[in-house]
Formats: sequence, C-alpha cells, structure tokens
Amino acid sequence: MYTLGIDLGGTSISAGLVDPTGAVIRRLEQPRPKTVQAMRREPLELARCLFNEEVQAIGLGAAGLVARGELVWGPNVVGERLPFRELLEDTFGVPAVVDNDANLAALAEIRSGAAQGCRHVLMLTLGTGIGGGIVIDGEVYRGAGFAGEIGHMVVDLGGPRCTCGRRGCLETFASGRRLDQLARDAAAVDPSGEVARLAGSGIPTGAHLAEAAAKGDVSARTRVEEVGNWLGLGIASLVAVLDPQMVVVGGAASGVGDVLLEPASKSMVASLEGAAYRSPPPVVAAAYGKDSGLLGAGLAAWEMING
Amino acid sequence: MYTLGIDLGGTSISAGLVDPTGAVIRRLEQPRPKTVQAMRREPLELARCLFNEEVQAIGLGAAGLVARGELVWGPNVVGERLPFRELLEDTFGVPAVVDNDANLAALAEIRSGAAQGCRHVLMLTLGTGIGGGIVIDGEVYRGAGFAGEIGHMVVDLGGPRCTCGRRGCLETFASGRRLDQLARDAAAVDPSGEVARLAGSGIPTGAHLAEAAAKGDVSARTRVEEVGNWLGLGIASLVAVLDPQMVVVGGAASGVGDVLLEPASKSMVASLEGAAYRSPPPVVAAAYGKDSGLLGAGLAAWEMING
Repeated sequence: MYTLGIDLGGTSISAGLVDPTGAVIRRLEQPRPKTVQAMRREPLELARCLFNEEVQAIGLGAAGLVARGELVWGPNVVGERLPFRELLEDTFGVPAVVDNDANLAALAEIRSGAAQGCRHVLMLTLGTGIGGGIVIDGEVYRGAGFAGEIGHMVVDLGGPRCTCGRRGCLETFASGRRLDQLARDAAAVDPSGEVARLAGSGIPTGAHLAEAAAKGDVSARTRVEEVGNWLGLGIASLVAVLDPQMVVVGGAASGVGDVLLEPASKSMVASLEGAAYRSPPPVVAAAYGKDSGLLGAGLAAWEMING
Repeated sequence: MYTLGIDLGGTSISAGLVDPTGAVIRRLEQPRPKTVQAMRREPLELARCLFNEEVQAIGLGAAGLVARGELVWGPNVVGERLPFRELLEDTFGVPAVVDNDANLAALAEIRSGAAQGCRHVLMLTLGTGIGGGIVIDGEVYRGAGFAGEIGHMVVDLGGPRCTCGRRGCLETFASGRRLDQLARDAAAVDPSGEVARLAGSGIPTGAHLAEAAAKGDVSARTRVEEVGNWLGLGIASLVAVLDPQMVVVGGAASGVGDVLLEPASKSMVASLEGAAYRSPPPVVAAAYGKDSGLLGAGLAAWEMING
C-alpha cells in the first residue's frame, strides 16, 4: 500500500511512492516543463510511470498559489488555472490532495523530520525561489488560503527585479536562482578557479558554488556567505513577525549545508530586534532535504484517506 | 464591577475602567515617562487614581517584548525587566495580566470591534512605532512568546536608522514618529503653509499634518500618502506571509484616517504577489482607534477572571 507524492518545484518535478511508515520507496525526477500545456500534462505522465494498483491516494505540491485543488498562480502559470486535483482524480481514479509545495515540506518536517514535536515552526524551501510553510500549534497554517509566501517579502526596495514584478523580494537575494547566478559570476571572474573547474564544460550552478565553498575556496565561500547573510536578514524579519520555536531550511538549495546555514543563523541573531532579551530560534537543515516536498505530498495523501 | 485597563504606549500612558460589557467608563492619560524608574512607578500611580473597590482585575499592555508578566525590552527599557504583573498584584491585591499592547488592541478589535467574527486578522497599531497583533483562529497568536513585532520587519536595507539599531525597519517609514517628522518638514519648508498655521507656536505633529491633508493641503497630503504607500508595502509583505482575512489599523496615528488608509490599501494591492489571482484583504480602521489597547487590556483582565 502506497501513496504517490508529486513535487512540482520551480526547476524540476519529482514523484515517488510513499509507504505508510513515511518512507519513499521509489523516486523519479525530471526538469519542470516550460509551458502551461506541458505543466498540465507532464506531472500526470510522471505519476503514470509510478502508479500501480497499490496506490491509495495521490498528493501534489506545487510552487505558487494553490486554492481548491488548483494551482492558480506560479512560475510560468499566470492567468491559467491548473486543476490538478481534478486531473489526478479523473486520470487515476483515487482521491488526490493538492497544496503549496512548501506547506507540504513543512508537513514532512513536523511529522517525522527536523521539527518533529515542535508546535510553532517556520519552514523555508530554497528552490528556484523561496517557499515558506508556517506551522502553528502543530498544523500547517494557511490563513485565508495563501499564507507562507515568504519569498515575496520585500527586504530592499531598491533591490533587483523579482519574477513577481516587484523589486527586492527576499528570493532575489537568497534562493537557488541567486546561488546559480553567483556561481556563474564566480566562474566568469576567475575562469581557472574552483567553481569553473567543477563546472567543467557545463553551466556553473549553485551546487558547484557550494562544493567549491565547502572545499575552502575563498571566493565561493564569500559568495555563499553573502546569500546566507541575506537569508538571515529575511529570517530575522520573519522571526519578529512569527516567533517560531525552530526555523527549518529545506529545498534543493539546502544541500549547500552549513556553509550557508551558519552565516544565515548569525545574521538572523544580529538582525533580530531585542535578540539579547529573547531566545532566537535555531536555524536547522531539513531532515529530508530536497525530498521534503515529495514526502510531504505523500504524507498529506495518507492523512487525507486516514481522516 | 470593573476591570482596570492600562496602555503603556511609546508616547503616552492611558488607563481606564472597563465594565463587563466592554465599555470604557472613565479614562486618564499622561505622557510616557522618560526613565526606567518612572516607567516602573507612573503606571501604578495612574492606576491608583482610578482604582476602587469595584475593580476585580487589572490588565496592562506595553509596547515592546513582554514575557511572564514582565516588560523585558522596549523603548527606554533595555537591559531592565519591569515586572508589572507582580507590581500590580502586590500594589492592588487583585489579579493582573500583562501583554504586548498591540496584542491587546487586536483582542479588543476581534471581540467587539472592526474584526468581530474574523478568524485570521492582522492588527497594526501606529503609535510612536508600529506594533502588531496577529489573530489566528480567533485568538491572539504569540508563537514562542514575542510574535507580532511587525514594525521591525526590514523593508529597505539602506533605509533610515531605527531605534532598534538596524536600518530600514517598516516603522522608520510608517509610524506616528514618521508622521511627526514629516509635519516638521512641511512646516519648515513652508512656514506660511497649512501645517505651520495649524501648529501655531507649538511643534508640528502628525495630527497637524493629517488635519492639513484632510483639508486638502497638497503638500501635507503628499506626505501622508508617502507614509501610506510605505505602510501598504509593509502590509503586502505581511499578507504574503500571513494571508489574513482582514487588516485592521489602529493606534494613536490611525486617527489620520482615510487619507492614510486609502493609499495604504492601494499600495498593498499593487505590491501583493499574485494580487490578481486572490482576494487581497480589506484594510480598515480600528473601531476603537487609539483606545483599542486600553480596552483590550480591560477585556483581557475580564477574560482572565472569567476563565
């Protein structure tokens, strides 16, 4: 008996079978489609590769605004509604649940991950952008529907243009996209440096930057720390607003690890109002890394059918 | 039978008797003390003027971080703990409850004010700074203790220095202090203008600026709108994070009214990620204006003794 979890992120789609103990049994991944037509079709095709008669329900998480089982706004999805719950139920004949990807990542981390047992948690998913999942009293909080869109908190009004059209959103300074950009910068500035060497003939990415930083490359380390400092600044504002007991950082770019999280944590404490008179929350890595969203989708499907 | 509500704001202290129906029966106000010693003493002296044998309990709201009945960090209160619950209970012999002032303002507005019946509400109190009260599922949310410190969300890293030591906190752009500053600017730039005329021989304040703006003075109106635009930008970030059903603006500076709230509401919608694909919450004035905090303190005292 399984559920099928699907994570529709900003850069890739992944899907997996999740057993009742919360283990991911089998996993597929492919790049995120570039058109709305393909966005509608390809998650179902990926699911078809995994679906079998033991699958009881399907959960899908998507980057963007999700309402009533539909993705209504997100990267490449503007002015279109993608009714994934209906599409999945019609295609596979089992119940489906659809939510924001970071909400599902938060679910995985509070049910069995880094934040297990915590009542009030802030989850950040560093993917292409920054997603957010807010946990209040042990449950994912949605507000009127779309709570947790923390990547679009403006931290610097004169900052770079964001994909949402505004300037200076947190995700323009601290996200997978920003790490990729800094990796390209590092390789361009120093074509014989560590980042360029690791990228070889390919395009340098945040993963190369992180690897170079972890190996002690000063230029890479400085760039990752810059991202960490911005991330910490954003987290400080979120802690001022929400005061969670723990901050969990996941998503694909969380693989960067301590070289990112340590400066983020220091910067958060340095930026937090009245930090000396309170206990700033720990900033920890997600237990499930980039799989938090997929696992959370599978768990949400289990919770739906088990009531 | 009454409770006694005390509101220790950034600029003034007010106290009042609150009856079981939530009406403020009698009210006193004085400027906020400038020293910690006076901060410890004067709220009790003000309470003593009102206290009588019919007072069943006391509620006190304070601008700043409040924990376990103590004000631990706030304007003029750095590195000192002011144990108001203990001081009040020892002095008056009735139970006392102490909370952040904006949390109590939010309580008043959801119990019988502008947000009555709403489940998820964001309350902003525009006083000297900006306080925040977050209501989730009909109750004030505190997180690990200090949630709602929205005035210290950084919106522009290169912005003016804040009293908290950082730069570009929301309250440096949109607060009573900022309105006062702009009133002084307006009077200095145009000594024969409406703001200067209204201030007469006194120091121009936000109230003069608001009055001039309401009378149609273009220079005053432009300045109030600037504050409204920043306020809306900050509210947009908070709506991205919290997605409340309603945003209530109170505090002393909320008396400015529509000339502030209309641009704030427009700016919020313009700045909100995916605004066309969701229903941005209404931005409304607090029903109790600058008395929300006092009334909320009295109501919290009633709720404490009524279980």
